[in-house]
Amino acid sequence: MAPPETQPDAPSEDVQSKPISSILIFIAMHTEALPLVNRFQLTEAVDSSYPKGVPWVRYHGVYKNLHLNIVQPGKDPVLGVDSVGTISASLVTYASVLALQPDLIINAGTAGGFKAKGAAIGDVFLASEVAFHDRRIPIPVFDLYGVGLRPACSTCNISQELNLKIGRLSTGDSLDMSPHDEASIIANEATIKDMEGAAVAYVADLLKVPVIFIKAVTDIVDGDKPTAEEFLQNLTAVTAALDETVAKAIDFIAGKCISEL
Amino acid sequence: MAPPETQPDAPSEDVQSKPISSILIFIAMHTEALPLVNRFQLTEAVDSSYPKGVPWVRYHGVYKNLHLNIVQPGKDPVLGVDSVGTISASLVTYASVLALQPDLIINAGTAGGFKAKGAAIGDVFLASEVAFHDRRIPIPVFDLYGVGLRPACSTCNISQELNLKIGRLSTGDSLDMSPHDEASIIANEATIKDMEGAAVAYVADLLKVPVIFIKAVTDIVDGDKPTAEEFLQNLTAVTAALDETVAKAIDFIAGKCISEL
Repeated sequence: MAPPETQPDAPSEDVQSKPISSILIFIAMHTEALPLVNRFQLTEAVDSSYPKGVPWVRYHGVYKNLHLNIVQPGKDPVLGVDSVGTISASLVTYASVLALQPDLIINAGTAGGFKAKGAAIGDVFLASEVAFHDRRIPIPVFDLYGVGLRPACSTCNISQELNLKIGRLSTGDSLDMSPHDEASIIANEATIKDMEGAAVAYVADLLKVPVIFIKAVTDIVDGDKPTAEEFLQNLTAVTAALDETVAKAIDFIAGKCISEL
Repeated sequence: MAPPETQPDAPSEDVQSKPISSILIFIAMHTEALPLVNRFQLTEAVDSSYPKGVPWVRYHGVYKNLHLNIVQPGKDPVLGVDSVGTISASLVTYASVLALQPDLIINAGTAGGFKAKGAAIGDVFLASEVAFHDRRIPIPVFDLYGVGLRPACSTCNISQELNLKIGRLSTGDSLDMSPHDEASIIANEATIKDMEGAAVAYVADLLKVPVIFIKAVTDIVDGDKPTAEEFLQNLTAVTAALDETVAKAIDFIAGKCISEL
């Protein structure tokens, strides 16, 4: 296996200490995004920054001198459902970072939680690290690439101020959890599980933009209810908790730089 | 679930009957791409069409009046291994289509084959349809979105001329196959299994570019040898068969339009 040829640059001192002026908020589902769009009175961008024909949606506005952009992968053009999962998430994040050059990415959304690791319905977490649980490549070094463990931007002050739980986030493209997924999630030491986080982290790392993850728990993965049922039952209520937390986080971020989060 | 709001446009008559002048060839691994880069005497692009810092690599040149671009996701900047899998594949394909506006995408690479469906080591297949096998979302309509079944561009004439096998391709981010993957692969009626195809198809569909899949079998998934071992053992030899077939396909494509493939 070839040694690494180049090391990626860490965010520079300059980025760490520059006041944050633009935030890209990636949210996979319309139901999750709508309360925030309304709260910040954002308007849908008509002259899209995206290629013709893609279903991606962007809402934008200014709040406390922060340029806010909430982006969503939008509805699948044929099936009409939200384009959830890692591929859409990575494409929309990539295109949005290039078009908008944000200082910070926030991936906000719902997640499954593990009660064995202390998660409960309605909890809102900040992710400390993110990784994949459905990319098994049992060849040395490729195995690490598949897991794709990445730290989130440090958020000690936000978590203290907002009194949020902290845990590792594990990402996969399935809503359910197979035994193989479960083994990888345990190896990832994850407290929460979603379908986009590690993909957003991958693109953020590729383009060198700091990223944080705010995830609200809709369902208990190691509980006794079927995930899909519990997820749909709690989605609206938990989305309200998510909205509240993201709003408080943005209030906290306003006027600060990355190193103060 | 909301009804589809828009139907994507099918490739227009114009696209179908215009002579193909530019081909984007996406290949995930450097070992798979190198013989073709040498054969067509392509040169590495220095003024990259990609953002600063990404590891993506593009080789380009002209052959029989065709603009050929071979693109690869390149080495992971930290781990030094080829950036295989669906996320990198979708990002590189997206960025390359926007930059190069190809008339046709070819996803060439190696794959696992199922002997129960007639595949043998060294076989080269054209995919008739592609789908995912590791995106289980057990909610109505979302389930279909997860599977993401898409037809490849029709290639009756290429398959006849080159005497290639035809079969369905199933894509997932793991090199191995869990029982859940296997059930989905059977449901997808797949003969071959890879780690990128359905992601390339997703982006091709999003940006309305015809796509074909040429996949050479390195390992028998329903055989008795471990996949990783068999894959590494056969990679170089099978890559030669892949190179030969892609070269013949490009010879066949030269001077033709999409409807003649």
